[in-house]
Amino acid sequence: MGLGGVAAVSAQASVESITLFVALLSVCIVIGHLLKENRWFNESINALFIGLATGIVLLLTSKGVNSRVMEFNEELFFIYLLPPIIFNAGFQVKKKRFFKNFATISMFGAVGTVISFCIISFGVKVVFEALDMGYFELQDYLAIGAIFSATDSVCTLQVLDQEETPLLYSIVFGEGVVNDATSVVLFNAIQKFDLSNLNMEVAMKFLGSFFSLFITSTLLGVMIGLLCAYIVKELYNQRHSTDQEVALMILMAYLSYMIAQLCNLSGILTVFFCGIVMSHYTLYNMTASAKVTTKHVFATMSFIAETFIFLYVGMDALDIEKWAFASESPGKSIAASAALLGLVAVGRAAFVIPLSLLSNLTKMSKLDEIDYRQQLTIWWAGLIRGAVSMALAYNQFAKSGHTKTPGNAIMITSTITVVLFSTVVFGFLTKHLINTLLPEDVSGCSSQSMATLPLLTSSLESEAEHGNGRGEVPRRLSLQMLLTTPTHVIHQYWRRFDNSVMRPIFGGRGFVVEFVGRSMHERG
Amino acid sequence: MGLGGVAAVSAQASVESITLFVALLSVCIVIGHLLKENRWFNESINALFIGLATGIVLLLTSKGVNSRVMEFNEELFFIYLLPPIIFNAGFQVKKKRFFKNFATISMFGAVGTVISFCIISFGVKVVFEALDMGYFELQDYLAIGAIFSATDSVCTLQVLDQEETPLLYSIVFGEGVVNDATSVVLFNAIQKFDLSNLNMEVAMKFLGSFFSLFITSTLLGVMIGLLCAYIVKELYNQRHSTDQEVALMILMAYLSYMIAQLCNLSGILTVFFCGIVMSHYTLYNMTASAKVTTKHVFATMSFIAETFIFLYVGMDALDIEKWAFASESPGKSIAASAALLGLVAVGRAAFVIPLSLLSNLTKMSKLDEIDYRQQLTIWWAGLIRGAVSMALAYNQFAKSGHTKTPGNAIMITSTITVVLFSTVVFGFLTKHLINTLLPEDVSGCSSQSMATLPLLTSSLESEAEHGNGRGEVPRRLSLQMLLTTPTHVIHQYWRRFDNSVMRPIFGGRGFVVEFVGRSMHERG
Repeated sequence: MGLGGVAAVSAQASVESITLFVALLSVCIVIGHLLKENRWFNESINALFIGLATGIVLLLTSKGVNSRVMEFNEELFFIYLLPPIIFNAGFQVKKKRFFKNFATISMFGAVGTVISFCIISFGVKVVFEALDMGYFELQDYLAIGAIFSATDSVCTLQVLDQEETPLLYSIVFGEGVVNDATSVVLFNAIQKFDLSNLNMEVAMKFLGSFFSLFITSTLLGVMIGLLCAYIVKELYNQRHSTDQEVALMILMAYLSYMIAQLCNLSGILTVFFCGIVMSHYTLYNMTASAKVTTKHVFATMSFIAETFIFLYVGMDALDIEKWAFASESPGKSIAASAALLGLVAVGRAAFVIPLSLLSNLTKMSKLDEIDYRQQLTIWWAGLIRGAVSMALAYNQFAKSGHTKTPGNAIMITSTITVVLFSTVVFGFLTKHLINTLLPEDVSGCSSQSMATLPLLTSSLESEAEHGNGRGEVPRRLSLQMLLTTPTHVIHQYWRRFDNSVMRPIFGGRGFVVEFVGRSMHERG
Repeated sequence: MGLGGVAAVSAQASVESITLFVALLSVCIVIGHLLKENRWFNESINALFIGLATGIVLLLTSKGVNSRVMEFNEELFFIYLLPPIIFNAGFQVKKKRFFKNFATISMFGAVGTVISFCIISFGVKVVFEALDMGYFELQDYLAIGAIFSATDSVCTLQVLDQEETPLLYSIVFGEGVVNDATSVVLFNAIQKFDLSNLNMEVAMKFLGSFFSLFITSTLLGVMIGLLCAYIVKELYNQRHSTDQEVALMILMAYLSYMIAQLCNLSGILTVFFCGIVMSHYTLYNMTASAKVTTKHVFATMSFIAETFIFLYVGMDALDIEKWAFASESPGKSIAASAALLGLVAVGRAAFVIPLSLLSNLTKMSKLDEIDYRQQLTIWWAGLIRGAVSMALAYNQFAKSGHTKTPGNAIMITSTITVVLFSTVVFGFLTKHLINTLLPEDVSGCSSQSMATLPLLTSSLESEAEHGNGRGEVPRRLSLQMLLTTPTHVIHQYWRRFDNSVMRPIFGGRGFVVEFVGRSMHERG
């Protein structure tokens, strides 16, 4: 019965911490709602501050012993909190716009992240050796590069608005998802590969596994999404059951993530594409109330998970054990954080500007181009580092939840500093920056032009329309034709394929309506 | 990095088991849907069989070493699976009917459970000492009484239909909720109190703590439900946000359960009444899509939790470690299971019949009485033992997940046997029994009379109506008046109080409409 007592005590402890977290989450929602009109706050910063305040209270009541009720737990983050956020991102994304900007998005998300990773890894190696920061292996430097290449899309998206600045939103959002996946894939690859003797062969293998991961992860997500659409379409066709349909959708979405994790694929990519496929097919096979329910359930779960993460990061930041080393050498700690922040900024600038210019070459209308103010906004919006960076840093430098060597301790505290600083300072300023750089009339106009742009007709026509309307003359026509025609051809083929093959099997918007329409026509 | 490796291995193991469970849950939903038309199966039995089948496969692939992927975990059950089921029960219950039958329900649920508890405890003591089953303390016998007094409402409700047999459904359902709470409260009280020298004083203290628990738990649930209603009404009145409202409701419902657990109250009762209050007030302060979403979210969560429990019980049943002792003395094990099943049946009969007769005394119409066929159905429907019994048995006899003494091992295997046998056999037969005992016309007629009965007008009028319609003559009028008048008076006062005080503060159905109507009237 002795063991039973221990189990009871630990159960009691977990009841306490769950109660505290649930209560704090409720408080976050209420205060976040009250502060909604405030230009300086957003919900992430709000949760972060409530977490910090709770940490201070806990630290004072426990007389400086402990500021957190749970250890930061990677498993909690990667198994329970991240999947709903990413799935919801895929589920709610405006698919047409996402795929229209697909080339730009994947360039920013994949190529850009790799550029940033290289610059940060190299820069950290140079700076840290100059500062004598402690012993790090090559693997550690590369891991730092991957950790600080992961932008925090959650916080950024609370500031940008899908209706006001659609192009920016689409790029920053899409980049965020691809970037998360890229960073995690890079990080896992670094931990797995033996990088002690880096040569051409190892580098090629690394690249190969990187791309095969990308493709298999995406395919897995698409397949599970289609399977779910097929099951709902065939099984519940005659006898609908909202609760069962919703349950099946939630379970299969989560299953896609877990299978990907189990096969060492990128669960983030898998669940993101699963979300896209489910919102394209499965959603339209369900009852009306199941549609409403799923839409809000996924948004709610994602919202709770996001709030939880920021609350948790805020609470965990004050854990004194981690700061013990940092307080011994505060200079080094501050230098490390500053160096990392600088490298993050440089690494991001190094791909946003060249890739934007490259992307502009493919655009037919000057309106669709990413101008220097938008480039600045994209650069700025992606400077925030968040929970993914935290989780990866813990994985690399504090695996058992405790920081062993001074070097590791400094990396953990620097990560917390960068995350807190960037979330609060950049988060505070982003809304103002956007309002300054992209005043209402510019963003409004661009929004309108984007909204009325017939995405599926030939872009030439719309270009002519807009060109006439704004007095623009088409330039670089031959190069544009060369670069944009393939995209349009692919889109045309996809639409035909979707209508004639996919929708009859997997369902989807308009399929039922078309079918009814046709049969009525035949009768007539 | 050694510890890190261990953490990675355990994380990988939990990824595997989560993946397996999520996949099995999806399979359960699909197969359950396919078998819906089948008269012999229901979703509980289906999940139980899929769990058993998976257990067999795991046992064979691991060459007889292990049949389960997780240990049965009380924490999982009481902290994560039970709250959504009970909250949903409160949220979806037909409140008018529930409170109309409140006296009968609480009699069956509280007094009945105590009668059953006494009979089973006493019977087990006699039988087990006769069979020489091993050493048990008085506390163990009382715990067995509490464990086997907990009926499994989940499985029963899948068989009964709220529309077809409303009175039965209401009583069995209500009894199930109050009974769960009573058993858990009894069980906790037994574990806490020193029962070695039982005297009048201890017994009175026991009774006192029992009732104060009941009342404080109920009040806590009501208060948190009202708080949530107030927050949603005041905060989101101007700026609605479906996702935040849904999130707040889920979090505060869960919070009520956790606070109750933390204060050693009955979380089941608290979250049940929180659900009732939320469906009475909070629901009507929300947006239309939030209403649809919450209704289906809670039903879906409850559905997944139920399926999970049966799947898990099925999988856990084959764990060979537990059966080692049982296989040494199979006779004793079978005798114990049979004795328990017999005592469950006797204990239930001992309160269903007398309490039904007592309840009939308060009924004005013969139609509202519980006739002998309905008594038989109530008795039968409550014979099923399920996850609550399992969880309590593990808590008492296998605290650290392992069975130490032969006596404890036999109790665990007997509990599993009783749960499996009653779920499968009684579950199989209940639908048929109901169809035999309460043929379509009888139950249909009773349903109709119940549905058209104006629940809020004086019962005398409706009694006269029905009396005339069916040629019944009112009997025992004076006794009925004496017994039913207080209920009606209370109901009248409550309605007035609700309309004039509660709804203006906390919102609720009709409040907004009435308000608009009045202001339009004033304008006119």
